[in-house]
Formats: sequence, C-alpha cells, structure tokens
Amino acid sequence: MKQFSYTVMLILAGLQVLAQRPPAISSPDVHADHRITFRYFSRTASKVTLSGEFLSAPVKMVKDTSGIWSVTVPPVTPDIYPYSFWVDSVQIADPNNTYIFANERFKRSIVDVPGDKPLVHSLQSVPHGKISYEYYHSETLGSIRTLLVYTPPGFNPNGKMKYPVLYLIHGGSDTEETWTKVGRANLIADNLIAQNKAVSMIIVMPYGNVRPKPMADFTADVINDIIPFIEANYPVIRESKGRAVAGFSVGGGQTLNIGLTNPDKFAYVCSYAPYTGTDEFKKNFSTWSPDAAAMNKQLKLFTISVGTEDFLYESVKQNIAMFNEKKLKLVPFIVPGGHTWMNCKLFLANSLPQLFK
Amino acid sequence: MKQFSYTVMLILAGLQVLAQRPPAISSPDVHADHRITFRYFSRTASKVTLSGEFLSAPVKMVKDTSGIWSVTVPPVTPDIYPYSFWVDSVQIADPNNTYIFANERFKRSIVDVPGDKPLVHSLQSVPHGKISYEYYHSETLGSIRTLLVYTPPGFNPNGKMKYPVLYLIHGGSDTEETWTKVGRANLIADNLIAQNKAVSMIIVMPYGNVRPKPMADFTADVINDIIPFIEANYPVIRESKGRAVAGFSVGGGQTLNIGLTNPDKFAYVCSYAPYTGTDEFKKNFSTWSPDAAAMNKQLKLFTISVGTEDFLYESVKQNIAMFNEKKLKLVPFIVPGGHTWMNCKLFLANSLPQLFK
Repeated sequence: MKQFSYTVMLILAGLQVLAQRPPAISSPDVHADHRITFRYFSRTASKVTLSGEFLSAPVKMVKDTSGIWSVTVPPVTPDIYPYSFWVDSVQIADPNNTYIFANERFKRSIVDVPGDKPLVHSLQSVPHGKISYEYYHSETLGSIRTLLVYTPPGFNPNGKMKYPVLYLIHGGSDTEETWTKVGRANLIADNLIAQNKAVSMIIVMPYGNVRPKPMADFTADVINDIIPFIEANYPVIRESKGRAVAGFSVGGGQTLNIGLTNPDKFAYVCSYAPYTGTDEFKKNFSTWSPDAAAMNKQLKLFTISVGTEDFLYESVKQNIAMFNEKKLKLVPFIVPGGHTWMNCKLFLANSLPQLFK
Repeated sequence: MKQFSYTVMLILAGLQVLAQRPPAISSPDVHADHRITFRYFSRTASKVTLSGEFLSAPVKMVKDTSGIWSVTVPPVTPDIYPYSFWVDSVQIADPNNTYIFANERFKRSIVDVPGDKPLVHSLQSVPHGKISYEYYHSETLGSIRTLLVYTPPGFNPNGKMKYPVLYLIHGGSDTEETWTKVGRANLIADNLIAQNKAVSMIIVMPYGNVRPKPMADFTADVINDIIPFIEANYPVIRESKGRAVAGFSVGGGQTLNIGLTNPDKFAYVCSYAPYTGTDEFKKNFSTWSPDAAAMNKQLKLFTISVGTEDFLYESVKQNIAMFNEKKLKLVPFIVPGGHTWMNCKLFLANSLPQLFK
C-alpha cells in the first residue's frame, strides 16, 4: 500500500509538471512575404502588447477563445530584430522562442526575417568557421574569464599560416556571446571570406563589462591578459598590422581607449556608435594631444560608425569633430538607423573587408 | 532650428530608452552560508513569488518602498538550480540574471550555489578544454545544423593521439547548449580528467529535437551524418570501443534507441531518466529480441540512471525490468532526486570515469 501511494504520488507529481506547462504554440512565425505572427498564451492577462525594434510603437495582441494572444505585423525589412511581450505591466521574452538576446539585464527574444536573397549574416552553404568558448586567467582582474574565438574555415592550428586577429567587443550589459548570438559575427565573416571580400582572420570576443572601471581595467585585461593568451594558443601575427579592435556602444568607447592609447599594438581601430560619456573617457581624451602624423602612419584604418537616428548620434559627431581637430585621419561611416544590433551587423560587414589588407 | 529640434528629439528618445530601463539590482545574491537573496523590481505587480528547484513550494517575495520585491531563502545544498519569478500570473526569468536555462519553451534563470569545497562541476584552476560551436550538413534532415564539440585540455587536432568520443544528448525542449550551459559537461570533464578519474575524450553535443520522429530520424542523423562529420574533422577512434552515447529524458530514450539498435557502433550506452512513452520506442523494443550474449559482449557498459523522486521513476524501473528480462547486462544507478539537471550532472559525473577504459 505504501508503495502504491508512493507511485500515485509520483504520477500526480508528473501530471502536475505537465499541467503547469502552457500549450506548445508556434511563435514567431515568419511568413514568406516578411510578415511575422507572434503568439502568447495567457488566460488571465488583461492586455498583451508586442514591442520590437521593427515597430515604431508597441502593438496590441488579440486573444482568441483558447487564450492565445496573437498579432501579425506587416512585412518588415529582412534582418534580425529584438522583441518582447508586455503582459499587463511585465516585460517578457517570448516563451516559445528559443533565441534570447544575450544580455545581462534585458531578457528579449530575437526574430530572424530572412531576405529573398541571402543577407550578409545569413547561414549559407559556404565553408564555415567555428566558435570556441575558452577560459583564460586574467591577472589584471584576478579571475578565470570566458572568451569566444572564431576561427575561419580551413583553420589549421599547427600550420605555417599566421592569422590576423580582430578583437571585437560587445555593448554595455551585453555579454561575450552577443556578437555571435545577435550580431552573427561568425556568419558575416564566413560569408565575406567565401566571397573573397574579407581575408581569413581570427575574431576574439571577450567579456567587456568590467566594473567599476570599464575603460582602464578592461584595456589592461585586453593588453596584458587576452592578447598574450591568444598569442600563446593560436598561430597569429604578433605585430600591429595583424591586430584590429572593434566594439559597439560602451564597447565602442573601450575600442577608442584600447586602440588609440596603444597604437603600437593595433593598426585597425573600428568604433561603432561609441558611448564616451564617462569620466574615464574625458580624462583620457580631453587633454589628449597625440602626434597625429605618427599615429596616422601607425593606423591603417581608424573608423567611427553611427546611425543618424542613434540617440548617441550628436555625441558621436562631437567625437568625430574632436578627432578631426587633433588631425587624426578618421573615416566616418554614417548610415540611417538607431543604436541597434541591426546596425552593428552593418558596421561589422563594412569593416571586415577593410581589415588586414 | 530644424537641426535643433532633431537634436532635442534624439535626446528625448535617448532619455526614453533610459527611462524604460528598470533600476539595476543585484539578483540572485548567493551568500557564503548558501542562503540566496532574490530581487525583482515592479511598482505595479500585486504579487510576486519565487519558484525554484531548491524549494518544495513557491515562496512569496516582499516589496519595499522603492518597488523592489525580495526574498532570502534558507541555506540550500550547493548545486546549480533553475528558478523563475511569478509576477502576478506571468512566469519570467530573472531580468537581472545573465544565465538563462537553455530551453525551447521555458525561460527560467539558473543560480549556481558554490560548495565550501569545489563540486565536480565547479570552475577550478585546472587545465580547461574548450567548447566549439560547429555547423554540419545533415543529409538525413536536409538542413545545416549546429552541434557543440568539447575537446579536452591539450587536444591536438593533428597529433598521433586518437580520441574516444561521447555523443551526449539533451532532454526534450532543451537545446544543444543545455549540457554545457546547465549541465556543465565541459567542466565536469575538465575536473575528472584533471583528477585522472576520466580519460581525455571528445564530447559531441548535438541538437536532438527532431520532429515528428525523434527516435528514428535523430538516430539516422547521428549515425549517417554526425558521426561521419566528427570522424572527418577530428582525430578520433573509429571503432565501437571508442564511442559512447548518453542522454537525458527524451534524449535518454534516444540513447537507448541509438545505442541498442547499433551495438556495433557504441560500446557504451548511458541512459539518464529515459522517457520511453513513445509509439516509436514501443515499436522498436516491445517485440525486440536481441542476442543477449552477443550484445553483452559488445557492450562494455550499459547503464540506466534515475532518481527515486523522478516522475518517470516507475517507468524507468519497468525499462530496467524489461532489459533484465531480455538478459542484457545492465548497471542501474539509482539515486535520490527528481527529473532534474542537478541529477543530470551527477549521472554524467558517474558515467565519465567508466568510459573508454
């Protein structure tokens, strides 16, 4: 009898687990004409809305008799977009979508709207590199940390070929995974390499959210820990002509700090929509007087990218003016769009063909 | 004036972005005595509760005057646990926690409670292998798919050493990332290899949620696509003595199907809390009459693990009885606990030392 009760208890526990599961519904459904249908199940919510970076304003979702809320949005420009649901006053990722925007604070989902022709970030039948997750020990920060390393198709760790390296930094509150999970840096590289537009390179994606001093301490981590780790473990070019640094937002500010305070180490500096409103940045750059001629010789490419609807646009324009005043050769890349990962992919796809040539 | 208005508009848009951001709060905070404090910000919720696999029932969180809901739970046994918040009737991941349980349907967070001494899955100062994300083309499924490959410390792709391979499968609705992100398979392997308890091996983690036929089609994918891809790209042993298959829940059922219908290919079959309630499983095994003597010779290890509080416990006991009836040599590994990833780590840590010896 005891055994029987125990069995019944287990079955009830199992049923309880199953009962807690909402029905499996399909969301998002991306249609061939680029409309997207979003669905969410709730019998109790009084209002559900969809927010997404493909929308200018949130849209209401409508509940059917089975408790499934849905909305179909008109065709959107093919790209990868973050979105979330607001269930009454709670913002959530789409429970039925596996793909989460890798971020420390925002739990949003991402939807991939494929183009009629493959986009620069699309998964295509071309040779693929791989992404490796590695641990390294940071003396600077006193901890074991993670970084991601993209190695290109045909990479041979023991061959004679020495690879150039792009150090690629995410935005504030992003993680070391955001450049691949959301930015598709690996697929952009695969595609551009397959088209002979970019050279074979290694891309290192570290974790940049170092607090309280993201500029100084992360710069030290990159220079004193990450670069030596990569150079000890990968066949790479050990001169500035074989090193680039790029980054977005807070990472764009870090890029300026890392690259411009170490021009002997990086011949390529690509800053995307940099956030430079920190005391650290002001301290390092307000009274900065570089030897412009020498630096212009050292830097093969110094570019700053930004979208005209980016909320940092005015600030980035001031950065550009400041570097122009200091007579640095700077290539601006100004495009439409906001402070988004749609633009990040565009910025990276614009930079890669200019690196290591 | 137009320029000025535009600038003001951008600043307002920026402020709006900032205003939407809830305050950055710390959650979860794991204390030295293994208590954990969870926090969530909402001014509008009328009730917030915490659910977690370290709790026997959800606990209420309490709001302070600033809108931060919190609760501190008594000391929990060191391990990695999934948890979520219920905000009124909406289940969400902890917005302030980066670590999400990799899953197609449940968006929960995970909290890592370290032990006073390192646990078998703890990040320690030992040599680390790496995890690579790779694409392969599945002829069986007609698509480009992702898999993860753990290579052990000191792995040399071009050396003389040929490595054994464990094919390790997640549960239903999990993803190819769950065994590393939640199960820490890579750190368990690093630690057991460092202690000379496990041999150096490669661990391949494919994506197993193949629908509508997860048994037949995924088995074909593993045998006809994944194994050939690994053997073409990694220096591995190409005989059954160098191949193991293991998996949890739906993946545990797939493990039985893959391993026992291909005993010439796998000498090690490790099934964890298998879900075998499918017509496919019944079809393959109800009238199955293996040559037990031959199979017992081929299989160096056939083990089934389960927790006594697992809602599949009775079903797994029936599986074990069925295989016993068929005279297969089977090593059961029965422990306390439920259908959880806490037990998955334990099952894997129990299997690894028994493989390839």
